[in-house]
Amino acid sequence: MERVVSCDLTFDVGEPADVALHIAAANGRVVRAERLDVTIDRRVLPAAIELATPHGGRLHLLRTPPGILSVSYRAELAAPPATAGQPAAAIRGGLPGLPGLEQLTYLRASRYCPSDHDVGFAVAEFGGLPPGRPQVEAITQWIHSRVGYVPGSTNVHSSADDALLTGQGVCRDFAHLGITLCRALQIPARFVAVYAPGLTPMDFHAVFEAWFDGAWWTYDATCRAPREGMVRIATGRDAADTAFVNVLRGIVALQSTEVTATVTGLLPIDDNLAPHRLC
Amino acid sequence: MERVVSCDLTFDVGEPADVALHIAAANGRVVRAERLDVTIDRRVLPAAIELATPHGGRLHLLRTPPGILSVSYRAELAAPPATAGQPAAAIRGGLPGLPGLEQLTYLRASRYCPSDHDVGFAVAEFGGLPPGRPQVEAITQWIHSRVGYVPGSTNVHSSADDALLTGQGVCRDFAHLGITLCRALQIPARFVAVYAPGLTPMDFHAVFEAWFDGAWWTYDATCRAPREGMVRIATGRDAADTAFVNVLRGIVALQSTEVTATVTGLLPIDDNLAPHRLC
Amino acid sequence: MERVVSCDLTFDVGEPADVALHIAAANGRVVRAERLDVTIDRRVLPAAIELATPHGGRLHLLRTPPGILSVSYRAELAAPPATAGQPAAAIRGGLPGLPGLEQLTYLRASRYCPSDHDVGFAVAEFGGLPPGRPQVEAITQWIHSRVGYVPGSTNVHSSADDALLTGQGVCRDFAHLGITLCRALQIPARFVAVYAPGLTPMDFHAVFEAWFDGAWWTYDATCRAPREGMVRIATGRDAADTAFVNVLRGIVALQSTEVTATVTGLLPIDDNLAPHRLC
Amino acid sequence: MERVVSCDLTFDVGEPADVALHIAAANGRVVRAERLDVTIDRRVLPAAIELATPHGGRLHLLRTPPGILSVSYRAELAAPPATAGQPAAAIRGGLPGLPGLEQLTYLRASRYCPSDHDVGFAVAEFGGLPPGRPQVEAITQWIHSRVGYVPGSTNVHSSADDALLTGQGVCRDFAHLGITLCRALQIPARFVAVYAPGLTPMDFHAVFEAWFDGAWWTYDATCRAPREGMVRIATGRDAADTAFVNVLRGIVALQSTEVTATVTGLLPIDDNLAPHRLC
Repeated sequence: MERVVSCDLTFDVGEPADVALHIAAANGRVVRAERLDVTIDRRVLPAAIELATPHGGRLHLLRTPPGILSVSYRAELAAPPATAGQPAAAIRGGLPGLPGLEQLTYLRASRYCPSDHDVGFAVAEFGGLPPGRPQVEAITQWIHSRVGYVPGSTNVHSSADDALLTGQGVCRDFAHLGITLCRALQIPARFVAVYAPGLTPMDFHAVFEAWFDGAWWTYDATCRAPREGMVRIATGRDAADTAFVNVLRGIVALQSTEVTATVTGLLPIDDNLAPHRLC
Repeated sequence: MERVVSCDLTFDVGEPADVALHIAAANGRVVRAERLDVTIDRRVLPAAIELATPHGGRLHLLRTPPGILSVSYRAELAAPPATAGQPAAAIRGGLPGLPGLEQLTYLRASRYCPSDHDVGFAVAEFGGLPPGRPQVEAITQWIHSRVGYVPGSTNVHSSADDALLTGQGVCRDFAHLGITLCRALQIPARFVAVYAPGLTPMDFHAVFEAWFDGAWWTYDATCRAPREGMVRIATGRDAADTAFVNVLRGIVALQSTEVTATVTGLLPIDDNLAPHRLC
Repeated sequence: MERVVSCDLTFDVGEPADVALHIAAANGRVVRAERLDVTIDRRVLPAAIELATPHGGRLHLLRTPPGILSVSYRAELAAPPATAGQPAAAIRGGLPGLPGLEQLTYLRASRYCPSDHDVGFAVAEFGGLPPGRPQVEAITQWIHSRVGYVPGSTNVHSSADDALLTGQGVCRDFAHLGITLCRALQIPARFVAVYAPGLTPMDFHAVFEAWFDGAWWTYDATCRAPREGMVRIATGRDAADTAFVNVLRGIVALQSTEVTATVTGLLPIDDNLAPHRLC
Repeated sequence: MERVVSCDLTFDVGEPADVALHIAAANGRVVRAERLDVTIDRRVLPAAIELATPHGGRLHLLRTPPGILSVSYRAELAAPPATAGQPAAAIRGGLPGLPGLEQLTYLRASRYCPSDHDVGFAVAEFGGLPPGRPQVEAITQWIHSRVGYVPGSTNVHSSADDALLTGQGVCRDFAHLGITLCRALQIPARFVAVYAPGLTPMDFHAVFEAWFDGAWWTYDATCRAPREGMVRIATGRDAADTAFVNVLRGIVALQSTEVTATVTGLLPIDDNLAPHRLC
């Protein structure tokens, strides 16, 4: 199964600006073809600087004069090399099960995942289950059954607490809530922005990864696209780390976004709870 | 069963001040004896102005010069007159079940009871039960089993959301959470500050009342004192309406609080869920 | 100057429902003509029950079967009777300046006006000014200069804190912020829903009233319509008390709202800070 | 000037537990002597695992059986090697002023620093100043003059918004507010936990660093200890990254904390605004 993903973004740039884009597929797959084209008022803008972000992510920095900024990204991706995607072996000497810095980082409360605030709720609701996979699966099912997918119900300031209490949200809120409840149970969890073949309506999507049994496992409480088809873009603590665009300087208004994501052949079927690892 | 309640408050008044006290037993019982003594630097302060607050409450306004302000209140109270405490009959003509203004008021979100924010959670957790008493009882049990009574875990700014998510609080938080979940289910609910014989450690206490079947029914999710022994002080939307002291002007620091509340004979036994109406 | 106001609301009622409407002009003006017409699927619905709300407000309760509910309200209003609108004289005996229960109520923190949380900010920013009118005027100017009127920037859960920190909001947020800062300075303040001739685009509008010098004075930090032309609808602690519609039972979806408000002759000019009392 | 710092912590461990300690001085100084002693019920606990955290930080992981856990850390530190502490030279090729990943990370909103929420306020209050150092200095002065240092006024869930609005906080709140306002103005900013000779009462302390002119500059809006004497412990987005202890597994209660920090000779004098770089 191969994947073709793309996004086309248009911005109105009002004064000289610096922009960070987090739209490219993360490293880890075989790249058959890939293009990132950027123009300002239809003239080519010199190449962006690429920065490596966690878990293979690639962030592109642009410096642009005023005008209409068009960004077009397209990639054709094959399955990852055979060696990728294996669970990390005992990566820390000495004491089995002690977390590394990566796991510690993703245990901590973050902007949209105030896990320190929700320990009581999480322990009361899920603390009686065996740690690790059973808790993460129960969290995913609980969110799916309790939170409605309602576009416009939340905004850029909304946290997991809002999703839990209002019972509404969009994909980022579902992911934030999953992360928050995991961390509140001492399970490292992180946010993943993805291209998601099969998503309707098509857009950027978000899922979460939880750490247990020595690996990061991917869950999508929205159940709106099969995990097997997804292509990782950015990985971080929450949406603050993974926004597809950040304006660092100047006045820039997003005017349009168009995302596509397809697979060759039939879309995989996903039971939404079977263990899955996103490469 | 008679009740004797008292409170002794001491304040340090730094400049001429106006203070509102909400400490007297509400009207509705036979008063055997009652005293409110106020001194400033051990000299008697002229009589306070008494204002009537909802449901028989009595608020006392003081104007005081600087000094050490001592407030001493004591009341001996017998059972209410025989006619009190009956369910309000059909108080509204025409359409049975339509709320009056009192019920409408206590359906609305308030400072510490953001019921608008919690509709999704309340409906998902309790919406499947029959409306009215079954929902209120389920809410009370849920709070009792899920929230720990932890002095110091919350502060004067904490809302019902904090109690729900952190799983901790004190009596006002338990009452706020009960009120919030009721209102989110369209059940009018309100906050009651009480003297509570049997409470340990003794202090001012708070419970909530929910409206169904044509009357206000009292619930105490803390289960820390029998409802039958309680003496109503102030009734309102939440703790903002019922604080035992409010400083309206000047600089006033509370230095000490001592509350007592006893009943003659044995303390009643309370199963915590049987319907109870506080007079 | 006469005023003509109207609103036409359409709802989709999915099951038998009870609805509360707060759309009629409050008492206090000479009523030349007034109609409230309610139909369900184009058949007349029996008369609503009218409840009196604070400061002359009038709330209408409807019980309706499923269908398309149409509500049409229209009123022609002349200046208030000559005796109306005078400052309340010394309404409390004994101690001048001590608040009555009305003023105490509007000193308290409410759902969207968490004044207890903002005392530090309010005192630091405005506490150096003389109490009363100078503080209220400074608050109004500060909000006007600091908060942008941005439709869609807030939602029904947003509080005054959101307006203060994000620097954005709509009329209800401006009013909530004015109320919050006043209360934090011990100035009673309340929310008023109004018809506002001259508002663009036309809609329901909201302003706030602050109590000083023995009267309630009206301020509109949005400066989007002259206060003299406004017609009071509902008065309360904040938007929770004054919503133009509340669904008390059943499933009801608002489908359309159309508001008009005009004055005879020229629209008055408003300097936005001169003392004004809304009748 | 040499520094001697220490901390002694005692915990009650109720069941087998994993604990992370962030108490050791960060790398960057000449270490004259350093000890970390850990005992459980007075028996030596095998050596902790040390993990490197950002900016030289060192985190120690312990696995402990139940009992009384005693942690004792002590270090004597001299000035950093001559080559340390120089501003990072042009670390990024190509486009001057474009941030690196480190700067991007510290531009993002975090748990206690919701900078996305406060852009409006920050821009209105400080946006008229020249970017960089003038803004950071104005922020520091504003916080110092507007926020009172009040132990107990906030708790572990409090954010910068609470400090801004209540006008109260402790050192972590001061740092969170400085960070939040900087990030809202597009200035990278981060949290630093330190030993602070001269602090009264002695305890762990927190300051913030802002990025401008190609380096991280240290500010302390509390003005409670001279920056020159401080010893960096942990660096991160906010207090979530830098807690001196985190319990990763098991039940662990902190029983006592004792911190010391001294310098040889006189304590430096700090004008609190002069540029300072903490090594």
